[in-house]
Amino acid sequence: MPRIRLIIQYDGTNYVGWQTQPNGIAVQEVIEKELEKLTGTRPALHASGRTDSGVHALAQVAHFDTDSRIPAEKFCYALNVGLPRDIRILHSDEAEGFHSRFDVIKKHYRYTVNNGPHAGAFDRNTALHYHYHLDQNKMQRAADALIGEHDFAAFKSTGTDLESTVRTIYSAKWSREGNTLRFDISGSGFMYNMVRIIVGTMLEIGSGRRDEDSIAKAIQSKNRSDAGATAPAHGLMLYRVEYPTLDTLDFAR
Amino acid sequence: MPRIRLIIQYDGTNYVGWQTQPNGIAVQEVIEKELEKLTGTRPALHASGRTDSGVHALAQVAHFDTDSRIPAEKFCYALNVGLPRDIRILHSDEAEGFHSRFDVIKKHYRYTVNNGPHAGAFDRNTALHYHYHLDQNKMQRAADALIGEHDFAAFKSTGTDLESTVRTIYSAKWSREGNTLRFDISGSGFMYNMVRIIVGTMLEIGSGRRDEDSIAKAIQSKNRSDAGATAPAHGLMLYRVEYPTLDTLDFAR
Repeated sequence: MPRIRLIIQYDGTNYVGWQTQPNGIAVQEVIEKELEKLTGTRPALHASGRTDSGVHALAQVAHFDTDSRIPAEKFCYALNVGLPRDIRILHSDEAEGFHSRFDVIKKHYRYTVNNGPHAGAFDRNTALHYHYHLDQNKMQRAADALIGEHDFAAFKSTGTDLESTVRTIYSAKWSREGNTLRFDISGSGFMYNMVRIIVGTMLEIGSGRRDEDSIAKAIQSKNRSDAGATAPAHGLMLYRVEYPTLDTLDFAR
Repeated sequence: MPRIRLIIQYDGTNYVGWQTQPNGIAVQEVIEKELEKLTGTRPALHASGRTDSGVHALAQVAHFDTDSRIPAEKFCYALNVGLPRDIRILHSDEAEGFHSRFDVIKKHYRYTVNNGPHAGAFDRNTALHYHYHLDQNKMQRAADALIGEHDFAAFKSTGTDLESTVRTIYSAKWSREGNTLRFDISGSGFMYNMVRIIVGTMLEIGSGRRDEDSIAKAIQSKNRSDAGATAPAHGLMLYRVEYPTLDTLDFAR
């Protein structure tokens, strides 16, 4: 059966995350149901990875197999007719032998903080409002400790069970534009809640409530209690996924 | 009575516009009701000007008079507690003798177009999705004809009655960033629907359905039928208001 690849953008505000759950509507099931309407059968949609409840995606990637006679490049247009406006298919094509999860080379997440005195009317669902003073230099020095291959056991949710907690971080950078602070991190992969725990720890460092070397120490101790609180989901966005044959940034701008 | 000045940001999606109307909820009445809760009496809130139903404001300005003992600089915090999250007060201060409408020196509107093949999940309420090819150079040449003092009678809604249709346009510029096209226009003031009719005319020019010199001709003819369709409201944002004593751009970034 031909394999179809989708590039998907979603505002995660109204969803329980990517993966189908009993307790609410997931992005995955919304798209699978539309595919069923179009093709007659409900395919299994495989993403590059899950995103948590409330987390957004500028460019998620997913694939499915179908015998449908709809041309691969037309699926994006056909799906967008029926999908809610907070889920958009930015691109579709045929990709023989491609796998959304196994073929990932690099993932890039962005966390956005509105560091002004008041929350914004436009970024209310996509940025954490945090009005305490944040020392960007301190947070950047803490972020520098993330770079390289490390055991990130201290930065996984307790109770999640994973074979390995070793990941490679390629870049981790804070930037500021007016009151908006952004944290951009790219790596080989990320565990459940990993970026949110990293950001939560850095916010405590930036506001002076935690030592600057906490990140380095937590990497060494592998102890969740040495890291900070999990930052809220709504500031987080899956920003870019890179494959040997695809860079989602080409479609999300 | 002391006069208090507010800088207000709102996502206009869920409102019938700034001004109180019988057919839905207006931004003005939502804020006036919160002021009544705080001060005990409902003041008249005067804005720099109305915005239409669905139009947004990055930084609207309004004033009211009150005998309340709440310090002027605290009104923003007190109001934001009770206001819905799509209306935020970015700043408040005391401004004796200030008038939100009469004292305006310059207003700046921004119209945003998503010119990509698919609408976006994040800009769905703040950008017009327009997938036809748009020739930015043609649109810019058309915009150049707006600069200066002209009679913009052709660019007002039919049925609106105004003393004068003469306005001065200081700047009118198209810019592109990826698939996003922005039109920034500043002037002494704008009539009801004026920016939306200007943008609608330029979109017809950019997509090749109207002559490049249509704007110049419509200015000369003063005839509404020589201009194009009114562009949808949701792409429009009141971006900046300048006064002798205040530039809203200082608070909205």
